Amino acid sequence: MATERPAKLRVFSLNCWGIRFLSQCCAQRYEMIAELLDREQHDVALLQEVWSEKDFLFLKNKLSSSHPHTHYFKSGVIGSGLAVFSKHRIQDALLYQYSLNGYPYMLCHGDWFGGKAVGLVIVDMFGLKAHVYVTHLHAEYSRARDEYLPHRIVQSWELLQFVRHTSCGAGMVILGGDLNMHPQDLGNRLIRAHTGLRDCYTEAATFDGCEDGHTLIADNHFTKKQDLVPFEKGIRIDYILMKGSKRVNVKCESLSTTKGSVADKPFPYSDHESLTAELALIQSEDNRQHGVRNTECSDTVPVSEQMDVVSEARAVIKEGLCQTEVLQAKAMCLIGGGLLLLLLLLAMAFLPCLCSGGHFSFTTVGFLGAVCMIVLLSGALLYLFFATHIKVLKETEDQMKLTSNYLQTKLSWHSVSESSSSDGSLEHQPFKREE
Amino acid sequence: MATERPAKLRVFSLNCWGIRFLSQCCAQRYEMIAELLDREQHDVALLQEVWSEKDFLFLKNKLSSSHPHTHYFKSGVIGSGLAVFSKHRIQDALLYQYSLNGYPYMLCHGDWFGGKAVGLVIVDMFGLKAHVYVTHLHAEYSRARDEYLPHRIVQSWELLQFVRHTSCGAGMVILGGDLNMHPQDLGNRLIRAHTGLRDCYTEAATFDGCEDGHTLIADNHFTKKQDLVPFEKGIRIDYILMKGSKRVNVKCESLSTTKGSVADKPFPYSDHESLTAELALIQSEDNRQHGVRNTECSDTVPVSEQMDVVSEARAVIKEGLCQTEVLQAKAMCLIGGGLLLLLLLLAMAFLPCLCSGGHFSFTTVGFLGAVCMIVLLSGALLYLFFATHIKVLKETEDQMKLTSNYLQTKLSWHSVSESSSSDGSLEHQPFKREE
Repeated sequence: MATERPAKLRVFSLNCWGIRFLSQCCAQRYEMIAELLDREQHDVALLQEVWSEKDFLFLKNKLSSSHPHTHYFKSGVIGSGLAVFSKHRIQDALLYQYSLNGYPYMLCHGDWFGGKAVGLVIVDMFGLKAHVYVTHLHAEYSRARDEYLPHRIVQSWELLQFVRHTSCGAGMVILGGDLNMHPQDLGNRLIRAHTGLRDCYTEAATFDGCEDGHTLIADNHFTKKQDLVPFEKGIRIDYILMKGSKRVNVKCESLSTTKGSVADKPFPYSDHESLTAELALIQSEDNRQHGVRNTECSDTVPVSEQMDVVSEARAVIKEGLCQTEVLQAKAMCLIGGGLLLLLLLLAMAFLPCLCSGGHFSFTTVGFLGAVCMIVLLSGALLYLFFATHIKVLKETEDQMKLTSNYLQTKLSWHSVSESSSSDGSLEHQPFKREE
Repeated sequence: MATERPAKLRVFSLNCWGIRFLSQCCAQRYEMIAELLDREQHDVALLQEVWSEKDFLFLKNKLSSSHPHTHYFKSGVIGSGLAVFSKHRIQDALLYQYSLNGYPYMLCHGDWFGGKAVGLVIVDMFGLKAHVYVTHLHAEYSRARDEYLPHRIVQSWELLQFVRHTSCGAGMVILGGDLNMHPQDLGNRLIRAHTGLRDCYTEAATFDGCEDGHTLIADNHFTKKQDLVPFEKGIRIDYILMKGSKRVNVKCESLSTTKGSVADKPFPYSDHESLTAELALIQSEDNRQHGVRNTECSDTVPVSEQMDVVSEARAVIKEGLCQTEVLQAKAMCLIGGGLLLLLLLLAMAFLPCLCSGGHFSFTTVGFLGAVCMIVLLSGALLYLFFATHIKVLKETEDQMKLTSNYLQTKLSWHSVSESSSSDGSLEHQPFKREE
C-alpha cells in the first residue's frame, strides 16, 4: 500500500443565503449552485441556509446523477437549513439541535426560527466510514455589543461535545459550515482544542482564494458594506475542518474560495464565498513518508491550552447566566404588572364605590381584563423561556467543570507518568478488578 | 488474567417520584433513599424524577462519602429530573434533550415542562471507560388511546441513535431508567434491536423481586390502582440494560427489585420499585470460559428483525405526522377566527354606519380587539409549535428510511458474502482508492 497514490476527496461548503422572497436573486442563484455542483462533482457538498425544502428538492432533482445521496436536516420552525449532497452512500444521519439559539421575539434576527443544529451523516467512502458534520451557528449582529456570545459559546460547546462523542469509530472526520466566528474567536479555539480538528485554511499546502481566506468580502455584490465594519477587507467565518483516525490520516492538499464574482454570471452564488478543500487520505503506515501529523486531540493540543480555553468559556457562560437572570427578572416584573392590574380589576368589580362616577362600564373592565391577560401570558411565557435558558447555561457550565477537572487530573497524571516514562494517557490503564 | 475472578459492578435505578408539594411524603422518602444508597454502596445509582435541585443537593450532601461523584442533568423548564451518583470518577457528561415531548398546554400531564432527555456520563471504572446512560421517556396516560405514542417512538429512536453513536469507544455500556414502555412495546424492541443492549431482567442468572419483574405494582402504598388497569398485577416499565465491548463482556449475575414495602418503614421509597443489577465484567479472552455471548449488535440481533421493527416504527411516525397536521390545521382555524374578528373590528372602526345605534362604544371595540389579539397570539404560537413537531417527525422518518436502506444493502451484501465465505460486515471492506 505504501507505494500507492493516496485517495483524494473534494469537499465543498457554502452558506446559500436562501431566504425565499427576501434574499436577492434566490432562484437564479440556486440554478447557478446546481450547475456548479453538477460540474465540479465534489465528493461531498455541505450547504447551509437552504431554508426552503422546495429549494432543497430543486437541488436534489438537479443533482440526482452527480450526487445521488442526500440528507436534508429538519428542525426548528422553518428548518435547520442544513443539507448534504454526496457522491457516496449515506449510511446514517443524526441531528443535534442546539439548546440555546437566540430569542423568538427578535424577529429581525430570526435565528431562533431556524432551529440551528449540527447534522452528522456517516458516509461510506473508499471503504472508510467518514463522519461528515455540517453546521451553522448563531449570527453575530454586533461585534462591540454581542448579546449572543453566550449562545454561540453554548453552541460551540455542544458542537464539540457532539463531535467528540460521535466520531470515535470514524475513519475520518470532516466538519464544514458557517461558524459565524472569526478564526481566533473563543468558540473556534474551543472547538479546535477539544476535537483535534484542523482548519483546512491553515493546513492547506496551496491556497487560491480571497485574501486571508475571507468568506464575507466587500467585493461581493450582495454584501452590505456596513456589516463588515471594522473589517473592511472581509472576515473569515466559514470553515472546513478535518481530522483522520488511527487507520487513516488526512492532509489538506489545497483550499480555494470563490472571489465575489462568477465568470459569465451577473452575480455571485451567495453573499458568502464558497470553500472547496482537496484532501488526501493516507493510510497510517504511510504517514511518515507523507509528513502527516498524528491526529489524536491529546497529541495535537497541549492539555494546558485545552484547560485555558475552557476557563475562558466558563467565564462567558457565567456572564450569560447573569444576563439571563436579569431578563428573567424583567419577565417577572411583567407578571407582577399583570397581577397588579388584575387586583385593580377585582377591586373595581367588588368595590363599586371605586367607580362611583360611573366612568367604568362593564366593557371597560372587560378591556382591561383582556390587556391584563396579554401582559400575564407574555410575562409567563418569557419567564418559562428564560428558565429553560438558565437550565442550559447551568448544564453547560457543569459539563465544562467536569472537563476542567478531568484535564487537571490528566495533567497531574501526565507529570507523574513522565517521571516514570509511561505514555501519559489515562485511557491506557489496565482493566483491573477493585476490591 | 483468565484465572482471575471477574470484576463486579452494582447498578441501581429508581424513579424517585420527587414532585415537591405534590408527591406524598417526598422529604421522608428522600431521607430513606439517601439511607439506602449510603448503605448499599452501589457503584452507580441512576435516579429519575429528582425534579427539585434542592432534593438533588440534599442527596449529594448525604452521599458525599459513599458516592463522591455526581451529575445532575439540567434541561427544560423544571429540569430533566435525571441524576447520577457514582463511586467512581465521572470523566465527562453529555445531554441530549428529546425533540418531541408532549404539549405545554397539557398542564395535567406536565411532561413537556420537564425537558425529558437522555444523559450520558463517562465513568472511569476498573480502568475501563463505562458509558452510563440515564433516561426517562414520556409517560403513557392511556394505553387504549395513547396520543403520545409517536412522541415516545421519536424519543426511543433518538435514544437509540444517541447510544449507538456515542458508545463506540466505550468499554461497556449501561442504560438505566424509566422507559414508560412494557417489555414488548415497539419502542423497547426498537432500542434493543438497534443498540444490542440486553435487558438485565431477561439475562439475570438469579432474580429476586416482584412477579415478572414489575416495577409499578398494586401492592405499592402510593400506586393508584386505576393506573394499572388492565394489568392488575403490575407492569414493568423501569429497566437496566447493558452490553460489553470487544475488550470486556458483561454478564448480569443477579437482578432484584424492591417489593412495595420497606422493612421498618411506614411507606415505600417511591411509587415505582427500584432495580439493582449485579454485573460481572469478564475480559474478552475469558468469555468462552464464562459462557458469555458476543455483544456486537449485528451479531445478537438479525438484520431482518432490525428492519421489521424500523418499518413498524415508521408507520407510527407517519400516523403521528397526520395527527400533528390535524392539530396544526386547528391552530390555523384559530388564527382564521382571530383574523375574522379583526376584520369585523376594522369594519366597525371604519364603517360607523354599522354601529349606527351607538351600541358599540370605543371600549367595546377595545375589548373585542384584546380578545382578537389573544386568539391570534394563541393560534400563532400553537401553529409554530406544531410546525416544529412536524419537522421532528419528518426528520425521524428520514433517518429511519436511511437506516432501512442501509440494512437492506447489508442484507443483500450478507447473502453475497455468505456465498463467498466472507464475514458479512460492510465495515470490514479494505480502505481503497476510487478513480
